[in-house]
Amino acid sequence: MTRRRSRALGRAPLRLYGRHAVEAALSNPRRRCLRLYGTPEALAAIGPLAVPLSVQPGAPADLARLVPAEAPHQGLVLEVEPLDAPHLDEAIGAPDPAAPIVVLDQVTDPQNVGAILRSAAAFGARALVTQDRHSPPETGALARAASGTLERLPWVRVVNLARALEAMAARGYWRIGLDAAARATLAEALVPGPVALVLGAEGEGLRPNVAAHCDVLARLPIAPGVESLNVSAAAAVALYAASVGRPREQG
Amino acid sequence: MTRRRSRALGRAPLRLYGRHAVEAALSNPRRRCLRLYGTPEALAAIGPLAVPLSVQPGAPADLARLVPAEAPHQGLVLEVEPLDAPHLDEAIGAPDPAAPIVVLDQVTDPQNVGAILRSAAAFGARALVTQDRHSPPETGALARAASGTLERLPWVRVVNLARALEAMAARGYWRIGLDAAARATLAEALVPGPVALVLGAEGEGLRPNVAAHCDVLARLPIAPGVESLNVSAAAAVALYAASVGRPREQG
Repeated sequence: MTRRRSRALGRAPLRLYGRHAVEAALSNPRRRCLRLYGTPEALAAIGPLAVPLSVQPGAPADLARLVPAEAPHQGLVLEVEPLDAPHLDEAIGAPDPAAPIVVLDQVTDPQNVGAILRSAAAFGARALVTQDRHSPPETGALARAASGTLERLPWVRVVNLARALEAMAARGYWRIGLDAAARATLAEALVPGPVALVLGAEGEGLRPNVAAHCDVLARLPIAPGVESLNVSAAAAVALYAASVGRPREQG
Repeated sequence: MTRRRSRALGRAPLRLYGRHAVEAALSNPRRRCLRLYGTPEALAAIGPLAVPLSVQPGAPADLARLVPAEAPHQGLVLEVEPLDAPHLDEAIGAPDPAAPIVVLDQVTDPQNVGAILRSAAAFGARALVTQDRHSPPETGALARAASGTLERLPWVRVVNLARALEAMAARGYWRIGLDAAARATLAEALVPGPVALVLGAEGEGLRPNVAAHCDVLARLPIAPGVESLNVSAAAAVALYAASVGRPREQG
């Protein structure tokens, strides 16, 4: 009902653009696609569509008018409905030590969230969890930065991040909060077993109540005088460290 | 001479914006600053200037007209001259195992190069090396993504990347090329001693002649089906791995 009403009120349609983002959406059975715009060349390159869809050829300049200024559309724009967000319980059930969960606290920049989705998918993460009120909506820019992984990695939006972290603990996840002021390094804080990697916004870091719901706080080993890594760089490093840099349980 | 001529021809002045980028430039003795624009609040927050400089207060909307659309200037815009690029020999002399060199082959996106400068500084890298013809110029967007580290990390621009890699080998650097198709993982390819981390553009990867000038090619352990990491995420991971994930030489 909310979705229908917001569209009736004239909300801009969600438009994905760029080859990776559009191709991934077209091949995602959970994505409802509404209309595809493309240059004849780009449409020819993606080949026959698996689902019936209104297709409208256009010149690059026509496509540019459908997306934000200077958005690199690569000849493809796809109008879609937002994905249905999965439930937390589905996303965190049956924990897998090789598949961490990434939790973001108040990371609002769509480029960063998109880049983190991409790194999370690359390192085999299980899901991304954000707080509904403090995270960006699905946008074309976010999908573009995610390079197709928005269609693949479950992204759970919760009302209360502290409660979500409690649910993870109950399932057996070890929750590691990234904090530049922590005593332990990430390498020291990693343990065998399933982990949740919790990252805050640049500058602000984790909110106290979120940090209080982590099992350990840990820092990345960065040089003195550099304030912090970009949050998407920090997430990539944490995911890498969790995938290679920790003791393995006996199989 | 070239610089003077290009300015006479009406080249747009280089404008840095955002608090970190502007403050770092103001405190960099190697940076020639020409004029500072700021909101009264932002100017008050940075305090007295160490060098005499023309300062022009303005409203946020005035500042917005000085920078690209939607650039997050945070109330500060600084007109500067580009930095003098350091020479390769200076930047790679006296190799330090704890200070890798980052080499970029045809990475042209200013956001990515800026983010890589930031991660390189954070992980104590020695220098960034790019090919002059295939790398972005200093811009406000690049400096903003670098979050002040453009002023700190030596960025060498060379004419020929293969020759620069030869010079690194002669100095004792072990040159590791990141390549998604490599057999060895990065963790396996890391050795004690000074290293150069060589990264190519997303999609294209390293050019054959650049790959041929690496001592080893190595891949990051990413999930099948995900094409690649974003190049700045890959750089952050490689820098982290080089700083913590390798055997130490006996001191």
